[in-house]
Amino acid sequence: MAEGPNDRHETEFEVRDYECDLQGVVNNAVYLHYLEHARHRWLDTVGLDFAALHAQGIDLVAVRIEIDYKYPLRSRDRFVVRSAIKREGRLKIVIHQEIQLLPDSRPVAQAKVVVACLQNGRPSAPVQVFSVFDRLAGR
Amino acid sequence: MAEGPNDRHETEFEVRDYECDLQGVVNNAVYLHYLEHARHRWLDTVGLDFAALHAQGIDLVAVRIEIDYKYPLRSRDRFVVRSAIKREGRLKIVIHQEIQLLPDSRPVAQAKVVVACLQNGRPSAPVQVFSVFDRLAGR
Amino acid sequence: MAEGPNDRHETEFEVRDYECDLQGVVNNAVYLHYLEHARHRWLDTVGLDFAALHAQGIDLVAVRIEIDYKYPLRSRDRFVVRSAIKREGRLKIVIHQEIQLLPDSRPVAQAKVVVACLQNGRPSAPVQVFSVFDRLAGR
Amino acid sequence: MAEGPNDRHETEFEVRDYECDLQGVVNNAVYLHYLEHARHRWLDTVGLDFAALHAQGIDLVAVRIEIDYKYPLRSRDRFVVRSAIKREGRLKIVIHQEIQLLPDSRPVAQAKVVVACLQNGRPSAPVQVFSVFDRLAGR
Repeated sequence: MAEGPNDRHETEFEVRDYECDLQGVVNNAVYLHYLEHARHRWLDTVGLDFAALHAQGIDLVAVRIEIDYKYPLRSRDRFVVRSAIKREGRLKIVIHQEIQLLPDSRPVAQAKVVVACLQNGRPSAPVQVFSVFDRLAGR
Repeated sequence: MAEGPNDRHETEFEVRDYECDLQGVVNNAVYLHYLEHARHRWLDTVGLDFAALHAQGIDLVAVRIEIDYKYPLRSRDRFVVRSAIKREGRLKIVIHQEIQLLPDSRPVAQAKVVVACLQNGRPSAPVQVFSVFDRLAGR
Repeated sequence: MAEGPNDRHETEFEVRDYECDLQGVVNNAVYLHYLEHARHRWLDTVGLDFAALHAQGIDLVAVRIEIDYKYPLRSRDRFVVRSAIKREGRLKIVIHQEIQLLPDSRPVAQAKVVVACLQNGRPSAPVQVFSVFDRLAGR
Repeated sequence: MAEGPNDRHETEFEVRDYECDLQGVVNNAVYLHYLEHARHRWLDTVGLDFAALHAQGIDLVAVRIEIDYKYPLRSRDRFVVRSAIKREGRLKIVIHQEIQLLPDSRPVAQAKVVVACLQNGRPSAPVQVFSVFDRLAGR
């Protein structure tokens, strides 16, 4: 996996056959798994551990996802998820994510994921988390 | 499962424990599975069989999904997916889907799914499929 | 869903299209999901809540699974999972599970699942759990 | 990924958070996904493409799986699946697979997977496939 500078992140993947459905292409829902894993990998590189945060009562949750499917992934395709982050207001961050086929960077899907943070179940912006987001967002 | 009149459809579900992730709530991607299953159940009631269509070279594919997550589903929750359909232009249909907790109808998620039809890989509006959509959309 | 007497349990399912893989049949791994859900439904009917137990530091875990695949499930198939339980030694229980197609009871798969109980990570036989298993096992 | 000599194969993985369930560990069924992906990667290195075979009417199917779960995988764990193959009779092959944690090779799970080959739905031993298996099995 290639890691870019802090304000962008890339994770490479390869389609696994069990991710394909009876149409022979990767099932729609699986793209959300790819996007989530790419986000968690990114968080990990900057010291935010999703599972450890949960154990501390801090949960990052997607509150809205928009995704455009442009070209279907198939068995054995290699692809990259490119992510960039933006703060939105006091309590939300927006992560723009693109999936591109490898090696030719053909656009596969494009998504906008709005993430909020719950602390013991309530919307919150804990400094330990949002200071990292601000750094990633270049603020 | 209750079936409404043709222009709306409801499918009831119950959360299965394996659908929950380490945060103890249903994983984001799984909601797309629920929505897909509700759509396919609906198609089934009006004589469109997703797998049989694929075998004939006709693939219904989601080209865009927007979903707002409002309240997390947890282990053993029962919920309903309510769906309504609208034709959009010549080649697309839009399905509005809501997930509500049972028995109190608390809003869980709201989605807009844009579906296109590929015939041997190319955008198409085969009469056998779109005449059914038009009927469901009340046109 | 039909509930039998305590020493046996049945849960009915219907194949969901996203559970099928590119061979057009339900993927191997998904059968373990069906079996797990059937077990948890059973536990639920006798007052054992898998998620609540986890919250109390008690985890039921599969330590061994044997499964024979006899006939592939396909899109829209309806089937039943029949389960029966047996105590094995002090710390283990064995659950025999059969999957049969509906309506004709054609054998689909047969499994033996060995379950142990971890309390704060260590093998254990908490009375609140094992007394229920013994009751289900007819002891 | 490291590829060993032909009679053994290794694939490296990393746990993805969505693969963990509400117990905070990788769900049982997901291990079958890992094992399948490792097998398909191996087939791929010797020129057998699972999806292409299906398109030719040749389906490799698991007929029996035995798996012992020894140590639970958790968020961010890295692990390797080691596989070895054996011919069994005229129509079956047996693949022994071990999952070990990295970097210390702690045993995570051990599995025996019996695979058969269906040609247009009937048990078969097509030369193009079984000659490869025999080569991998060192015969």
